[in-house]
Amino acid sequence: MHQQGVTLWFTGLSGAGKTTLCQAVAEVLRSQGYQLEVLDGDTVRQNLCKDLGFSKADRDENIRRIGWLSQLLTRNGTIVLVSAISPYREIRNEVRQSIGQFIEIYVNTPLEVCESRDVKGLYQKARAGILKGFTGIDDPYEPPLNPDVECQTHLESISHCVVKILNKLNDFLPLQSPIPHNARIGN
Amino acid sequence: MHQQGVTLWFTGLSGAGKTTLCQAVAEVLRSQGYQLEVLDGDTVRQNLCKDLGFSKADRDENIRRIGWLSQLLTRNGTIVLVSAISPYREIRNEVRQSIGQFIEIYVNTPLEVCESRDVKGLYQKARAGILKGFTGIDDPYEPPLNPDVECQTHLESISHCVVKILNKLNDFLPLQSPIPHNARIGN
Repeated sequence: MHQQGVTLWFTGLSGAGKTTLCQAVAEVLRSQGYQLEVLDGDTVRQNLCKDLGFSKADRDENIRRIGWLSQLLTRNGTIVLVSAISPYREIRNEVRQSIGQFIEIYVNTPLEVCESRDVKGLYQKARAGILKGFTGIDDPYEPPLNPDVECQTHLESISHCVVKILNKLNDFLPLQSPIPHNARIGN
Repeated sequence: MHQQGVTLWFTGLSGAGKTTLCQAVAEVLRSQGYQLEVLDGDTVRQNLCKDLGFSKADRDENIRRIGWLSQLLTRNGTIVLVSAISPYREIRNEVRQSIGQFIEIYVNTPLEVCESRDVKGLYQKARAGILKGFTGIDDPYEPPLNPDVECQTHLESISHCVVKILNKLNDFLPLQSPIPHNARIGN
């Protein structure tokens, strides 16, 4: 009787479009009556990880906590949408193992594009050396080797990406309407 | 269509019987097919709060994190059973406010009884000065002023306490069988 849970994990550089995509998928699912929770990396840091910085160990612990939270929500029948840079492959794989019902979405936007967008002005600060250990500048981003979905927001429209994600989600959780009407509008 | 969520928060001294009661309520609800999650203070510390100690500030942050986790699960339709000493009144009230659907269960077992049980041998260590800042010994426990349910495990049977808790839960979430069969057995 209960909805089955699953975690959709959006990984990629700052400014890649993770949150935009995440919100777009959430909007479609919400309009279809699904129970879901959007976990934004920044919000989780504020609520669970005030103690953590941006060293490798702290980033790993941050992702581990988001992972555990997602695991609890998922096993209780929630669709969880996580938007977090999550730059390290090993901890992403650890989280995938612990959650089980897991879709890795690689938001693969090139650094040049992310940097030219620079919505939060963070790249400028990182280039100026004000922000240290910034992913893509002076800290590594390890791309997924076998993502379940790959989106290239500089080449594909948001709607196109949303449809790809929903099609994958449909493998885990048969949707009421696999290709939603509002995702068909536009391109 | 989705089950409504609610948090049952068990507060009381170490050894008061919080976990025992929590498990007994969980068992009845699980047997009736409810979606639930048991959050034990120790488990949450391990997964979300490795950085925190037992100072007032750290205990408050610990409870705040358990509270936020419970809030997310509750608003997604899970019955959450929290078992945590949670000695400070103000933070318990803060958590109650943020969750909304909240039942405070005061497991009111006198210190002497808890200490004589001493299941984990912690009181002995606290009395010997090996454990510092132990609730009830050299750190305060602030009892709830208006708990939704009060249980006295040294005077009432577990079954009796379970029925009291389920009756209160029934105000929030009409149960399929308000006084469950197995809680009627025995006293």
